[in-house]
Amino acid sequence: MVEPPALRDVLAAARRLHGVARHTPLLSDPLLDRRLGGRLLVKPEVLQLTGSFKFRGAYNALATLRPPRVVAWSSGNHAQGVALAASLLGIPATIVMPATAPEIKRRTTEALGAEVVLYDPARERREEVGAEIARRTGAVIVRPYDEPLVIAGQGTVGLEIVRDLLARSTLPDLVLVPCGGGGLTAGIGLVLRALVPHGELWTVEPEGFDDTRRSLEAGVRLRNEPGRTSICDALLAPEPGELTFALNRTQVTGGLAVSDAEVEEAMRTAFDRLKLVVEPGGAVALAAVLAGKLDVAGRTVVVVLSGGNVDRTLAARVLAAG
Amino acid sequence: MVEPPALRDVLAAARRLHGVARHTPLLSDPLLDRRLGGRLLVKPEVLQLTGSFKFRGAYNALATLRPPRVVAWSSGNHAQGVALAASLLGIPATIVMPATAPEIKRRTTEALGAEVVLYDPARERREEVGAEIARRTGAVIVRPYDEPLVIAGQGTVGLEIVRDLLARSTLPDLVLVPCGGGGLTAGIGLVLRALVPHGELWTVEPEGFDDTRRSLEAGVRLRNEPGRTSICDALLAPEPGELTFALNRTQVTGGLAVSDAEVEEAMRTAFDRLKLVVEPGGAVALAAVLAGKLDVAGRTVVVVLSGGNVDRTLAARVLAAG
Repeated sequence: MVEPPALRDVLAAARRLHGVARHTPLLSDPLLDRRLGGRLLVKPEVLQLTGSFKFRGAYNALATLRPPRVVAWSSGNHAQGVALAASLLGIPATIVMPATAPEIKRRTTEALGAEVVLYDPARERREEVGAEIARRTGAVIVRPYDEPLVIAGQGTVGLEIVRDLLARSTLPDLVLVPCGGGGLTAGIGLVLRALVPHGELWTVEPEGFDDTRRSLEAGVRLRNEPGRTSICDALLAPEPGELTFALNRTQVTGGLAVSDAEVEEAMRTAFDRLKLVVEPGGAVALAAVLAGKLDVAGRTVVVVLSGGNVDRTLAARVLAAG
Repeated sequence: MVEPPALRDVLAAARRLHGVARHTPLLSDPLLDRRLGGRLLVKPEVLQLTGSFKFRGAYNALATLRPPRVVAWSSGNHAQGVALAASLLGIPATIVMPATAPEIKRRTTEALGAEVVLYDPARERREEVGAEIARRTGAVIVRPYDEPLVIAGQGTVGLEIVRDLLARSTLPDLVLVPCGGGGLTAGIGLVLRALVPHGELWTVEPEGFDDTRRSLEAGVRLRNEPGRTSICDALLAPEPGELTFALNRTQVTGGLAVSDAEVEEAMRTAFDRLKLVVEPGGAVALAAVLAGKLDVAGRTVVVVLSGGNVDRTLAARVLAAG
């Protein structure tokens, strides 16, 4: 296993991202706070360039490595992050996406200047498709989460959270993070464990895809059972990353899981109260708080809304159903 | 007519609102910029407390006057702004709303602690209903736009725009503002005319409710023709305010009007590219730019998204229609 990143790598990433990535605000709503009896602060990475936190890690990796070409695989948000980062740095990019990815994510990845190669997730493994392209073209692979520079880039979300809370003369009691492969959690964990050791850090996953929750309890990486479905297309990684789990098992307080119905309710709440578009996978941490999975009364709770790239037809269905 | 506010009143409002109102960011999107061939910066007042810029003016008025009680009338956003401002300042509030106002706006106004009194817009005039309550209870009236302290409060939107653009070492060539009674435009105009005299300032209204556009051309206040409809419920004021028009006729470059179809397209674009929920009236300025009403090639264009309080059923219909 490669060397895991440390806090100094997150700080270096923040310097590279300064003036490039958006420093997203911390948002709150008086009515939500009243309902919860606590202080809820939302970190809207839906407002990040490309609509998710993934741009941070992708840009940090590419700005550090400066490869002649890049190839990446992704169900969508990492694809857009790599595509825009590569475009800003003048690096040709090829993105390997499942043919089943949401239309908006594929279209946007192409609009950002990347070449998109589709594969059939039932017959092919994306890692092999990507590795073959790398062999053929000499492109460097930027993995979506099991990569130190990517984890360090995602960690800048945590730096901004701590800095903006310090500016309000406070610190977080709890931080809840949507978790797929675990890169965002691992990066935020590097910051919290160094700067806010008392702050709890929780992963949130969709039910049926709670591999990190179960792995944290078991102390070893476990895979998801096959055959489950979820609307959270961004969080369907089959198991925790090797590198991310090595960090998360020491940095994370515990894991939570939420149902699709709880996720949809959180999407509606984000719409009504925060005026934010959140994709299903981006809403799981808010869903956990709204569904009362943790006691937040009297506490300062930070929830990361990790992405907002949702098809309009799905969003319309969720909004009309509430 | 009372004395119009000046730049110093906007600066005083900014000091009162500091740490209370949200300093909303300026957002952009690489793909929108590429499509437009210019530099588009969006000022998302949908992220302001209560989901619209109206909180600024309401808080500035109440924090200055500190009345024992307050009464206000509004189709919705001013209602919520006054309700929250009054609640924060410990002032009992009564809000006069049309029985036809969107459900979300009525429910939220009550949740913010105000008493809501409904009236029938076909039979009663809201000004008379409000004035009667003021007589009976001794409450001070805070008008939605024709009030110097309210205009000065809305002007803080303009201060933030100029400050945040200066931080990027630039200034706006064009600023487009959704216009109902004209308070937001008048406040922003006070800032632009003093600090960015070359910057163009445009009002944007719904077709059929373009009283400000026609009044600016005629040089006198004109009313809207009766019998028209629009989905932009926040922008249906019957004519320009007296005080706001006195300012806008000297400060505004010109007026634009957009169709409901153009507004819906702008709502979908805000959803897809900016991950923001925008109500119809809040989307008119973006609609004008996207529909090509002005030449923005090579220019720095600021568009105010003035509010995001839209019923989910309407939003679902608009999203599904695109």
